[in-house]
Amino acid sequence: MLVRVLGAAAGGGFPQWNCSCRNCRKLREGTFAGHPRSQTQLAVSADGLAWFLINASPDLRFQIEAFPPLHPRSNSPRDSPIHGVVLTSAEVDASLGLLLLRESQPLIVYATEGVKRVLVEDNSFFGVLRRQADQARWRPVTPGEPFGLETIEGLPTGIHCMPVATDATYPGYVTPERSSSLPEAQASIGLFFEHQGNKLAFLPGSPTVDDEWIKQIETCDAILFDGTFWSDDELIRIQGTGRTARQMGHMPVGGPDGSLERFSGLEGPRKIFIHINNTNPMLDESSDEHRQVTAAGWELARDGMELEI
Amino acid sequence: MLVRVLGAAAGGGFPQWNCSCRNCRKLREGTFAGHPRSQTQLAVSADGLAWFLINASPDLRFQIEAFPPLHPRSNSPRDSPIHGVVLTSAEVDASLGLLLLRESQPLIVYATEGVKRVLVEDNSFFGVLRRQADQARWRPVTPGEPFGLETIEGLPTGIHCMPVATDATYPGYVTPERSSSLPEAQASIGLFFEHQGNKLAFLPGSPTVDDEWIKQIETCDAILFDGTFWSDDELIRIQGTGRTARQMGHMPVGGPDGSLERFSGLEGPRKIFIHINNTNPMLDESSDEHRQVTAAGWELARDGMELEI
Repeated sequence: MLVRVLGAAAGGGFPQWNCSCRNCRKLREGTFAGHPRSQTQLAVSADGLAWFLINASPDLRFQIEAFPPLHPRSNSPRDSPIHGVVLTSAEVDASLGLLLLRESQPLIVYATEGVKRVLVEDNSFFGVLRRQADQARWRPVTPGEPFGLETIEGLPTGIHCMPVATDATYPGYVTPERSSSLPEAQASIGLFFEHQGNKLAFLPGSPTVDDEWIKQIETCDAILFDGTFWSDDELIRIQGTGRTARQMGHMPVGGPDGSLERFSGLEGPRKIFIHINNTNPMLDESSDEHRQVTAAGWELARDGMELEI
Repeated sequence: MLVRVLGAAAGGGFPQWNCSCRNCRKLREGTFAGHPRSQTQLAVSADGLAWFLINASPDLRFQIEAFPPLHPRSNSPRDSPIHGVVLTSAEVDASLGLLLLRESQPLIVYATEGVKRVLVEDNSFFGVLRRQADQARWRPVTPGEPFGLETIEGLPTGIHCMPVATDATYPGYVTPERSSSLPEAQASIGLFFEHQGNKLAFLPGSPTVDDEWIKQIETCDAILFDGTFWSDDELIRIQGTGRTARQMGHMPVGGPDGSLERFSGLEGPRKIFIHINNTNPMLDESSDEHRQVTAAGWELARDGMELEI
């Protein structure tokens, strides 16, 4: 299975439009020891012909143009090698890009019922995906129940997904009343992909790590894990207000309960942080935090990174 | 008044993600006699310090990064020289970018009540602009009633806007039932800007041109007019189905009733087409259509174009 990282930043991207934290400021000045990143987005394919997007970032138009295998072939005026999208949540940075996949193109969308309801029932914008009958073909995903990715023609690709529920809640834009009407375990999922016996874990947002996941991850070839924040109070210190990393659904990388510590015994898979917030000090390749991460055997995902699983 | 064209394409941009029409195909091949364009977006400023966005395109994150005067200053961790946004409609390509201006930044949004209701009442995504009390400060705009652009601190900028109703309807994603509950004249507006006696007309989407507008436009220094389609059946010929240009709210450029003909007597202002669809043959600078446009004294807006009005 081919895995292309089209974007590796958290919501807002790096740099973020209204941010002049040390990282964003130095990046714009051209003095930053590191790289810009667009918002987290994967594309996967079993054969290099039929592609599936994992999440749908707000930067998707530019991410598609930057990766020629996702361009339309020239044998039809309207066409795309993108057959479907798998959503892990209804967060704006994970789902807004669906609205960029308009223009009457048929598309399979794999999402939990909870995520679909938040998007489609609560946002009339999604009418742009109903311009043609059978344009967006929603397929319900249930945590714990594996499913196979199929082409728009209904052919199996050989890629299998196992969705797992995370402890993250519905996004901040969903009111508490609305959230309470939706299945709690469907708010946010992680994905274990399998193709021809090879495995990839994609867990871009999770405040906790289940012991059962650790066992699953040990059998994977690679893991792309939540690298949003270094510390639990990172945004509060910069903004002066707000929620902790864990309250926002993210396990911090550093600290005694962080992911470096939690995964310290992990031997098998290639370990890669993704969904990295613009404020995270580990983005700076001259920082102590970056040294800690690499010393622990982790890599940072970057736009354009490719894995073959 | 400084006017920066951050984007000049119609919805979907040029190239468009799923399009392999002649223009998109040749552009991707590197053999096109013309230029890529992101989705239509203006930024205006009276003093070069306080900026206002005219519409909010889905490409806004990249458009802001490409224009350093819109970057945050470095004296505060979260900051922006963008004080407000003026919306001409609730079309996805004109309004989706509002959701990219999240991250707790205060912002004035000038829009008709009808446009505000379609966006905010019908799309829970807009909760991202309510993270802080008084974050998005909506100011009602009524066609025919002029208003002044004010900074977030409430100071006048000296820029005045006269909104005018167009004949365009609410966007295709708004159901007929919902549309019928909204003020018809508030679906889509054009804007006449005035600063220190100088004037700019911005009419990016209109199926017809009022005689009264022609009089107003004659007094302008420049006009940015709807250049979406060359011919009324342009999309139908490419897609095999769909609506005419006029049904989509756009006067075609060519033909006996097109804008070249309609504005043929216009002498005063600099004449510029904007909101140009990827399929429009006039994008090809080697085409007959491009020659007709330039022979008639019109220019095509491009990303990065600047006007001083």
